[in-house]
Amino acid sequence: MTDFTTFGQQQRPQFEAYLEQALAHQLEEPTLKKAMQYSVMAGGKRLRPLLLFAVLESAKLPIDLNAMRVAGALELVHSYSLIHDDLPAMDNDDLRRGRPTNHKVFGEAQAILAGDGLLTLAFDWLTTTNLPADKQVQLVRILAQAAGANGMVAGQVEDIEGQTKQLRLAQLKQLHHLKTGCLIEAAVEMGALLADLNPIQKAALLTFAKYYGLAFQIQDDILDVTSTAAVMGKAVHKDAIEQKNTFPGLLGLAGAQAELEQTCQQAQQALQSLIGLDQTLLNSFLSYFDEQENK
Amino acid sequence: MTDFTTFGQQQRPQFEAYLEQALAHQLEEPTLKKAMQYSVMAGGKRLRPLLLFAVLESAKLPIDLNAMRVAGALELVHSYSLIHDDLPAMDNDDLRRGRPTNHKVFGEAQAILAGDGLLTLAFDWLTTTNLPADKQVQLVRILAQAAGANGMVAGQVEDIEGQTKQLRLAQLKQLHHLKTGCLIEAAVEMGALLADLNPIQKAALLTFAKYYGLAFQIQDDILDVTSTAAVMGKAVHKDAIEQKNTFPGLLGLAGAQAELEQTCQQAQQALQSLIGLDQTLLNSFLSYFDEQENK
Repeated sequence: MTDFTTFGQQQRPQFEAYLEQALAHQLEEPTLKKAMQYSVMAGGKRLRPLLLFAVLESAKLPIDLNAMRVAGALELVHSYSLIHDDLPAMDNDDLRRGRPTNHKVFGEAQAILAGDGLLTLAFDWLTTTNLPADKQVQLVRILAQAAGANGMVAGQVEDIEGQTKQLRLAQLKQLHHLKTGCLIEAAVEMGALLADLNPIQKAALLTFAKYYGLAFQIQDDILDVTSTAAVMGKAVHKDAIEQKNTFPGLLGLAGAQAELEQTCQQAQQALQSLIGLDQTLLNSFLSYFDEQENK
Repeated sequence: MTDFTTFGQQQRPQFEAYLEQALAHQLEEPTLKKAMQYSVMAGGKRLRPLLLFAVLESAKLPIDLNAMRVAGALELVHSYSLIHDDLPAMDNDDLRRGRPTNHKVFGEAQAILAGDGLLTLAFDWLTTTNLPADKQVQLVRILAQAAGANGMVAGQVEDIEGQTKQLRLAQLKQLHHLKTGCLIEAAVEMGALLADLNPIQKAALLTFAKYYGLAFQIQDDILDVTSTAAVMGKAVHKDAIEQKNTFPGLLGLAGAQAELEQTCQQAQQALQSLIGLDQTLLNSFLSYFDEQENK
């Protein structure tokens, strides 16, 4: 069984190629196409697709075209959320993944529309696979509920509102659960659906995803304090300047690192309760945090 | 068989009540909920839902809770498109349906997010009905493709780009087909799917919808010249000030009125080829244009 880094190296090239050709063949309006491609093809870790693929790999199932398309839908939604989050009216970011943000290149109107187009395209993709209809319906429902007004969009609203007040730890965790956790859980749940896992396996995987998503966000906050723009591909030390609620801000840097470690342990425990699947690969997703720490 | 006005008076109250309670019960984040409710519950003609209901009525089928939910999804998408279109980066409108636009009340960030939330919620609703899974899948696909990057979103991109150049009549029609026609056709197609119509009936209805949608846009352009803000509930004479491409601008007022009449006739002809359905109600949708002219 491969580890996270090797798995990513193996899976990413064909996934990148899939995204590239799918967008190139499907989109017609030239300006919109360029703006949508710009953000989707900007790289990034492809973490949500890799999580979905890893669930299939853990169940010793092939990563076929259906899985590519479903993972692609997740990445479209993630890309749209970054475009809209970066807008002047929101986080007003100029840099993303080492390049100018979408609205810096295409203007605000086109950036809003590119995001709208990507979000809508995700649901098109989920209903144009060879999967049975009942699975397609469930995939749409999982993604819509995770990304929507009781999920990711609510998280962004709370993030904006939270900037003017001091959040407690539980509130900060809830904010991040909505803003990034829901979509990470959706990736794992969609993988579990494709792999026909049983409810007990699915529950264990969702618990893993919950702590994994939280760990990811704590890590992101820590890196904003400790890393450089060159490594991150986006502005750093922004959280402190904007007086954002962060884990290091609330717990101190050492406290945040302890919280990260504890959260990773909870994710590991969830995996240990996972019967009938090879846990090695998903477990290695957690080692990513150690690697980042040592960069 | 009732006419358009009576049908609207009969159907709208229960549809409004459906929307109101569905949003009230499902949405959790208070600010986002208010912003989403504000635009969805702002009234409007509910034309797309009424078209879907009219297809069912023409097939002598009941307008049940599934139909309400599917029509609701159409209206959520329509509402999201209005919120995003009105943004400062887009059309920069202060007034919509006689009230301040969403961003004027809630701010730009919340307006963008309210739109995102409504678009996503539409796909949630389409996958939480009692319809068979294969129909749910088709409904999602129809809506995603009509509203997306090769449909409504592309239309908005072309509208923005078209403001700096003089369009020919065919280009103007294509722009409006994307921007408003696609969603109107989707309403009729979704109705045909719910009613289990045969392919010939569906094709006739789609041709009707194509001309109906075009007539609707010609009418809208004409009213921008001839009507008042009080009647329209939004700013008028804006097209000329902004040098927008419009049918009266391209054909003159009389030419646009002739084009409207011809388009309505083409819509009527499509209905005449519709076998096995009562055409009276859908036909009466066209009389709406005469009523508006005489206001």
